[in-house]
Amino acid sequence: MVSNNFFLKKKVYITDLFPRKKFEKKTRLNNIKPLGEATKLDLTFYDSKKYKSHANQTKASFCITTENLSKDLPKSVEKIIVKKVLVELARVSKIVYPFSDLDYPDFSLKKPKKSKFKTVKFGNNVLIGKNVKIGKNSQIGANTIIEHDVQIGNNCIIGSNVIIKNSLIDKRVVIQDNCKIGQKGFGFLPNKGKNFKFPHFGKVVINSDVEIATGCTIDRGSVDDTVIGKNTYIDNQVHIAHNVKIGEDCMIAGQVGFAGSSIIGNNVSIGGQAGISGHLKIGNNVRIGGGSGVVKDIEDNQVVMGYPAVPLKEFLKNLKK
Amino acid sequence: MVSNNFFLKKKVYITDLFPRKKFEKKTRLNNIKPLGEATKLDLTFYDSKKYKSHANQTKASFCITTENLSKDLPKSVEKIIVKKVLVELARVSKIVYPFSDLDYPDFSLKKPKKSKFKTVKFGNNVLIGKNVKIGKNSQIGANTIIEHDVQIGNNCIIGSNVIIKNSLIDKRVVIQDNCKIGQKGFGFLPNKGKNFKFPHFGKVVINSDVEIATGCTIDRGSVDDTVIGKNTYIDNQVHIAHNVKIGEDCMIAGQVGFAGSSIIGNNVSIGGQAGISGHLKIGNNVRIGGGSGVVKDIEDNQVVMGYPAVPLKEFLKNLKK
Amino acid sequence: MVSNNFFLKKKVYITDLFPRKKFEKKTRLNNIKPLGEATKLDLTFYDSKKYKSHANQTKASFCITTENLSKDLPKSVEKIIVKKVLVELARVSKIVYPFSDLDYPDFSLKKPKKSKFKTVKFGNNVLIGKNVKIGKNSQIGANTIIEHDVQIGNNCIIGSNVIIKNSLIDKRVVIQDNCKIGQKGFGFLPNKGKNFKFPHFGKVVINSDVEIATGCTIDRGSVDDTVIGKNTYIDNQVHIAHNVKIGEDCMIAGQVGFAGSSIIGNNVSIGGQAGISGHLKIGNNVRIGGGSGVVKDIEDNQVVMGYPAVPLKEFLKNLKK
Repeated sequence: MVSNNFFLKKKVYITDLFPRKKFEKKTRLNNIKPLGEATKLDLTFYDSKKYKSHANQTKASFCITTENLSKDLPKSVEKIIVKKVLVELARVSKIVYPFSDLDYPDFSLKKPKKSKFKTVKFGNNVLIGKNVKIGKNSQIGANTIIEHDVQIGNNCIIGSNVIIKNSLIDKRVVIQDNCKIGQKGFGFLPNKGKNFKFPHFGKVVINSDVEIATGCTIDRGSVDDTVIGKNTYIDNQVHIAHNVKIGEDCMIAGQVGFAGSSIIGNNVSIGGQAGISGHLKIGNNVRIGGGSGVVKDIEDNQVVMGYPAVPLKEFLKNLKK
Repeated sequence: MVSNNFFLKKKVYITDLFPRKKFEKKTRLNNIKPLGEATKLDLTFYDSKKYKSHANQTKASFCITTENLSKDLPKSVEKIIVKKVLVELARVSKIVYPFSDLDYPDFSLKKPKKSKFKTVKFGNNVLIGKNVKIGKNSQIGANTIIEHDVQIGNNCIIGSNVIIKNSLIDKRVVIQDNCKIGQKGFGFLPNKGKNFKFPHFGKVVINSDVEIATGCTIDRGSVDDTVIGKNTYIDNQVHIAHNVKIGEDCMIAGQVGFAGSSIIGNNVSIGGQAGISGHLKIGNNVRIGGGSGVVKDIEDNQVVMGYPAVPLKEFLKNLKK
Repeated sequence: MVSNNFFLKKKVYITDLFPRKKFEKKTRLNNIKPLGEATKLDLTFYDSKKYKSHANQTKASFCITTENLSKDLPKSVEKIIVKKVLVELARVSKIVYPFSDLDYPDFSLKKPKKSKFKTVKFGNNVLIGKNVKIGKNSQIGANTIIEHDVQIGNNCIIGSNVIIKNSLIDKRVVIQDNCKIGQKGFGFLPNKGKNFKFPHFGKVVINSDVEIATGCTIDRGSVDDTVIGKNTYIDNQVHIAHNVKIGEDCMIAGQVGFAGSSIIGNNVSIGGQAGISGHLKIGNNVRIGGGSGVVKDIEDNQVVMGYPAVPLKEFLKNLKK
């Protein structure tokens, strides 16, 4: 599946973004990307030792970071030393992607043209934005909105009252009624009286054979993407925040919540109402009990439960005290 | 209220479903039902000692079960011995009800005809499927979808943006905005790369004088039904999974979640954000504190709290340790 | 922003409401208001010592209360002594506001007239009720419903599939897709077989620069209002019950739930899935950890965590036991 641009991107030179800093040359910026995905002519950012391994190997041309962290970056990277990495990142992202800090309604929506979607079945009052692509034999329920540039694969079943924006959806995906996918995440810089809204110019990627039950919300990524792996099944009213990456063959029960930027392995099962804190790494084949609150990384093949979640044996032992 | 069939049911002989097994005769199957509801010519299933009392008395003609469990069934039942009961049940259910493993959009939806619903008040853009029945003086809010064969009683108030499918709703029921009722539950057989979607051919039954607040999701039953008893009130964002049965006069506060197949008694109150695990039996007059995680059966008249939930006295004693 | 009446109010004399009681004179009632907001000719109620300070200073002309509590009220107030304050309050509220105990669909909804909303941008199929006011340069997404008498300020961005009723919304407010604001709260008097629905004739007030993410539900007040303070940001799937008042500059993460009538200070941050019980007072600058269950008042500047929530130090100490 090819990537896509959902947001207007301004053409800027790196020197436009940081006018006080001296650069080797006046380079035209390609994009803003996370450490691990940035390539030549891209700007990235490095704000926590947690991402040191990615920092060591980044292929970005420019990186916003602090004096201290800058040592972890390759020589090839031009370092932009600041005090508050995320503040600078937000500032320049707003210049490059000026319309990504809010969900402006899509006023390009229209009834779908049958000539364009010959084998797609549409329910009543479906609205489709510009440049939307929908694969063969997919079905879309009544009152559903698919905003501009969204791509949906073959043989997908999308329910009624669904809204999809800023998303790439692969084949045989099932999305039940009332899911909201691709909206802006909960990211901002707190500021008394007037927060600074963090631009969200990432997207949502949903891989093949995924099933998402009724009333889920999946926020798009900020700089990165939010990703759901193949054959992962998600129950009702699950909340998936920006930049979360869920692996393949996972089972996520009802009302589970994921805070931003956590990475979940393959074949992970999570019981109802569990919560996963932000910026965690959950291994493969992990089982998380219902109602648990996960606040630390979990290695492969662990079974955990509790608030905060601990290995199941420990949880059961504590109960007997 | 008379039962209803929401899903196409194929006419099959029991010998078609299990071609390798020898049966007494080539019987035309009537239906697939749970142990307690199956009658003559029905196929049922028995997969856990938990349901032994129902097994002892089932009136089904055929039962999928294991060698070991088969002894609990009456002589009148032809036993179909398998290793994985639910796998076989899913396989044959998919043959009998081929369109129940997914929520295919209802393409029969149309604007309601005034001549058919003379005393019903409809908001803008309401969509109604084939064979829908709505009782006298009921009101339906804007953008609401009521799919084929749904029945709604007299004097009901249904809000806006509601979707109701595969459901029988009695009189004087209030359903607030954005509730989604009757969709497929979270049931499947895990299979690396491609799960097997469990057919859900049950329905939702909502009895008289029930009130359901904004944004709730109530999944239909798989083989059984999901049932809400008379005069039970349910607050915002509650999630009720497949086959759950809630009694009369209950009070369920906001964001409570029920996993599948639990049975809740009458006059039960449940505090906000509590979670009820699957396949439990909660007695009458039980009170469950907010945020509790219920993982065991609860007898009548108990007050419980905690994660996992324990009697209130015990919870308070543990706090003081 | 001027207040507004969303519900039909019957003209009644205080003697009509309590025919058995003798009053000084046959006064025409102005309104029913909480202790702190009632003024001359208003009826109020006082049912808990918790509100003694408000009782001492109320300017109401009439107050429903008990014999015991009546001593806390000023001499200027005519006391209406009853055994069950809320039962009487519900009864007379139903007389004064006969259509506020339910969310009757708004059948005044129409497509917006461009001549009335010259600078407002509307998506497809937006529906607007009578007397709705929308400020300059605001944008409203597709399929959104704004019911009668709602007021929205300048430069607001309202997403798609939103429903707003009984609400006053100030300027520069962002409300993302699928939020439901202003519906009736979860209030009733339990009664076997037939609960008594408590009238909800309050509203929702959302102050300037608030941001509310996808799929939140904010119930209107019953007698009082539900209020969100300036520059407060609320994440996905948050549930805010009737009469809750949240201060300015707060950050509320995903799936948090507030039971009714709690008051939250300024600059409070609440982690994901936390629950706040009813009728609590949370101070300024409080931080509440994710998944916490808050069951007691919290003073200014505290950091709490746990179920039930305790000061963070205590929570961490208990973990080590």
